[in-house]
Amino acid sequence: MCNPQLSDRGDKETVENGTLLMPKFDSDGLIAAVVTDVASGEVLMVGYMNEEALKRTIVTGEAWYWSRSRKSFWKKGETSGQVQTVHEILTDCDQDALVLKVSVAGNGATCHVGYRSCFFRKVVTSHNGASGVPVGLVPVETEKVYDPAEVYNKD
Amino acid sequence: MCNPQLSDRGDKETVENGTLLMPKFDSDGLIAAVVTDVASGEVLMVGYMNEEALKRTIVTGEAWYWSRSRKSFWKKGETSGQVQTVHEILTDCDQDALVLKVSVAGNGATCHVGYRSCFFRKVVTSHNGASGVPVGLVPVETEKVYDPAEVYNKD
Repeated sequence: MCNPQLSDRGDKETVENGTLLMPKFDSDGLIAAVVTDVASGEVLMVGYMNEEALKRTIVTGEAWYWSRSRKSFWKKGETSGQVQTVHEILTDCDQDALVLKVSVAGNGATCHVGYRSCFFRKVVTSHNGASGVPVGLVPVETEKVYDPAEVYNKD
Repeated sequence: MCNPQLSDRGDKETVENGTLLMPKFDSDGLIAAVVTDVASGEVLMVGYMNEEALKRTIVTGEAWYWSRSRKSFWKKGETSGQVQTVHEILTDCDQDALVLKVSVAGNGATCHVGYRSCFFRKVVTSHNGASGVPVGLVPVETEKVYDPAEVYNKD
């Protein structure tokens, strides 16, 4: 069985300027992964990986996560077909976050609500400074790519 | 004093399809913020905000974070001059992550190591599946934008 080796954390210099992947998992054993479209650069979602999910992603070239809500491994696209082929994985200076550049299979969407990106709403910027005024959201994607009811909960 | 109101969490439908910002802060009171360059779309860093940092960001239009290591508010650029002007804030479907589209002042870099982006290294993809082989990193940015020694620790 393939089992690439993640390195133990080194000192600050090694982590920040070194040439070994030594990811920092948080107190829950997770690291944040920002997923972007390899072609457009658009941010599609943020997921979390434990060590095993990261290894599976590296070995298979398809994105695996740890679902914090379901407390289980989650291969993106297993139900929806929106499998993420990973073209590049970047790590940041202190190696406590990742960027995955992916292409999405199936209907090409990423969000379970039906949109291309999970980030389909922006914060309204007018009147944002006013005391007691609830901060609003407006869509940045106007149309859903697919109807979630046709993809999920079909049993 | 300006004090925009973040809404309390609603039900799943309201959170996912609604028009109010009702962010989910984790057990440490934090939400992840992915910072991208408003012009190029490049991911520059991942920071964390508590409720107050998010409000300051909304009110001032400049990015504030909560430093998990220093356990204090952190206005990005206060020391380095790399202040982030926030052009757009996006939230995701379950409102537990943000994207900030920013322009960077000063020398235009974001990473304290000296690079434009904190994600200046990529995971080596060859031989990644081999058992026991340490996973390596190679630079994706070849030159530092600035010398950190000239910016930080000058006292």
